[in-house]
Amino acid sequence: MNKVAIVGTGQTKFSKDDSDIEKLLFESSSKCIQSMNDCDSKDIDGVLVSTNNNSKYLGAILSETMGIQPKISHSIEHLCSSGTNAIISAYAYISSGLSDVILVSGVESATNPGQILEWDKSRGALEHPIYWGSMLTKSHKRKFQTTEEELAIVSAKNHKQAMDNPFAYSNEARTISEVMNSKQITDDLRILDCSRSCSGSSSILLASEERAKILSEQPIWITGIGQKTTSASFTKNILEEIESTRIAANLAYKMAKIEAKNIDVAEVHDAFSVCELMAISELGITSNEKSGEFVRNLFNTENRMINPRGGLIGAGHPLGATGISQTIEITNQLQNKSNKRQISNTKTGLIHNMSAAGTSSSIMVLQN
Amino acid sequence: MNKVAIVGTGQTKFSKDDSDIEKLLFESSSKCIQSMNDCDSKDIDGVLVSTNNNSKYLGAILSETMGIQPKISHSIEHLCSSGTNAIISAYAYISSGLSDVILVSGVESATNPGQILEWDKSRGALEHPIYWGSMLTKSHKRKFQTTEEELAIVSAKNHKQAMDNPFAYSNEARTISEVMNSKQITDDLRILDCSRSCSGSSSILLASEERAKILSEQPIWITGIGQKTTSASFTKNILEEIESTRIAANLAYKMAKIEAKNIDVAEVHDAFSVCELMAISELGITSNEKSGEFVRNLFNTENRMINPRGGLIGAGHPLGATGISQTIEITNQLQNKSNKRQISNTKTGLIHNMSAAGTSSSIMVLQN
Repeated sequence: MNKVAIVGTGQTKFSKDDSDIEKLLFESSSKCIQSMNDCDSKDIDGVLVSTNNNSKYLGAILSETMGIQPKISHSIEHLCSSGTNAIISAYAYISSGLSDVILVSGVESATNPGQILEWDKSRGALEHPIYWGSMLTKSHKRKFQTTEEELAIVSAKNHKQAMDNPFAYSNEARTISEVMNSKQITDDLRILDCSRSCSGSSSILLASEERAKILSEQPIWITGIGQKTTSASFTKNILEEIESTRIAANLAYKMAKIEAKNIDVAEVHDAFSVCELMAISELGITSNEKSGEFVRNLFNTENRMINPRGGLIGAGHPLGATGISQTIEITNQLQNKSNKRQISNTKTGLIHNMSAAGTSSSIMVLQN
Repeated sequence: MNKVAIVGTGQTKFSKDDSDIEKLLFESSSKCIQSMNDCDSKDIDGVLVSTNNNSKYLGAILSETMGIQPKISHSIEHLCSSGTNAIISAYAYISSGLSDVILVSGVESATNPGQILEWDKSRGALEHPIYWGSMLTKSHKRKFQTTEEELAIVSAKNHKQAMDNPFAYSNEARTISEVMNSKQITDDLRILDCSRSCSGSSSILLASEERAKILSEQPIWITGIGQKTTSASFTKNILEEIESTRIAANLAYKMAKIEAKNIDVAEVHDAFSVCELMAISELGITSNEKSGEFVRNLFNTENRMINPRGGLIGAGHPLGATGISQTIEITNQLQNKSNKRQISNTKTGLIHNMSAAGTSSSIMVLQN
């Protein structure tokens, strides 16, 4: 199995504007190519697009606009975790020897069709994600005595961290009190507990070991991968668990030969505040019971270990681009290139991206 | 690199009915699982869906309906060659060691959004594929003196061959004269020169060498893969060539260590009659000048070497399922299981699947 590295990254600003997706793809891809040592479009033999957009043939369209004539090209969709699915697919192509260098570009428009899973009739009239976010929140409060303040800290922390991320949707500080007094949208959720669907694009270039050493002075290696889909419908979920995350994390740790305690920095899928608490527990970083306290401590000590770019709550959630932006953040952290967001001495980072109420999860471990 | 084999296949009837795509996926996947020795859903650690349908999360939905909890799952779209793209992606996952057994299911409804590439403004009002089919036909006639009768033979041959394919859309014989006198739809195309968009689903199971030997008595090996995307818009095409096919074929032959003369049976992408003539030329089976004569000879001698299941013209063209059905036909031919369609002594078969006026091509070589 060939080793695979991340050698280039590029992003657009995340915003509420409903921009043209082809332009967004071109912008983040161009920045990605420019981020590298002397990368020629002829070097790129794969172009994968991750999106929930209904436009077809986007891999070929992006290739043509970028002047690339790849071998491999198609679009990948798996709701909110489309981005990590595309990166892991690119990993497989390179690792298997079918490709040497792949551009992976994620994109979404603010009004995208991936927000509601129409097939899942078990949700009835409560089809919008806020309803499962609300149920998970109620369960967590009941089972683990999680307080509203602890939940609000997740949002306050991520909004604060997003202020140092130039690509983030939000650049406003939000105090704990502001979060707790923001507009109530269900019994257990306030508007500032929720990530926002937005437009944006993120691109990443992956390369084989041989090509990586030419294309980058600081290649970042994908050393662990774990994925799991447990179901599609919400009714199969146990409300206090994200089983798919736990299984995927164990697969990724085993492949990378690490344990949770080795993780220096993690991007986790905080679609709602409660998801960050559940994720860091399922990843083995803390326990559900202690997760509120863990995040409070990070906030009080200004430790950016979890979601340094501001998470989905602070940075925004352009579905098909999210997993790629998470991966870019961990890459930059491991390259010591995160400016104000930089965490010191990072050796091992993790990306956690999930879909549809945690019915599936994709996890990657990166190392420098 | 691990070897990868096809170990199971399943198909629905192709029809004009606009069936529910989740039901079609379930039907072909169930038949695929039943076609094998004792396959447990726990053995399947990947589920990929190829389609142009706008429904989201179909990999997870198919997994849930089939009782599978895979590691890897997502949807893949690349217009008419979505199916082969999904198979080649599965190959990469297994070959890289990330997965052992993957179910690949393609599906389309008759009224699907993959028929017109809205992005390609270069087509102006002539956006429907019949217009590029017509331009390729006019060019072929002009440059290679191809006759209307030779073009009609492609359709008559494929309609005839489809009569022995129980899953085909068409089960009517069409004489050369009937094709030549069918409804004229452009200067150079008649209705029987065109494949029909239809509904249908096809599924295939791929496995690593170790698992393949347990799951099948006759595993069929993917020994060659070649892919190329040259552009997305039609304006970049030279009308007498399918450059993407030529490049992809050479990559596939090199990987499989074969030459065109070694091919015993081929499924080629006859979206229109002229495409079969162009494909067998670009694949090196014959030349453009001799392609009409080559197909006439096949027809007169009842040699089914090209498109034994009836091609897209005879079998129908449910976009996301087409490449998978082509692969199933070659698999069955190499397993000596094609009943009335069987070609004797097949050792090496080829699949040619393309998208958007030949702007991209995917090719696989299979061997027993």
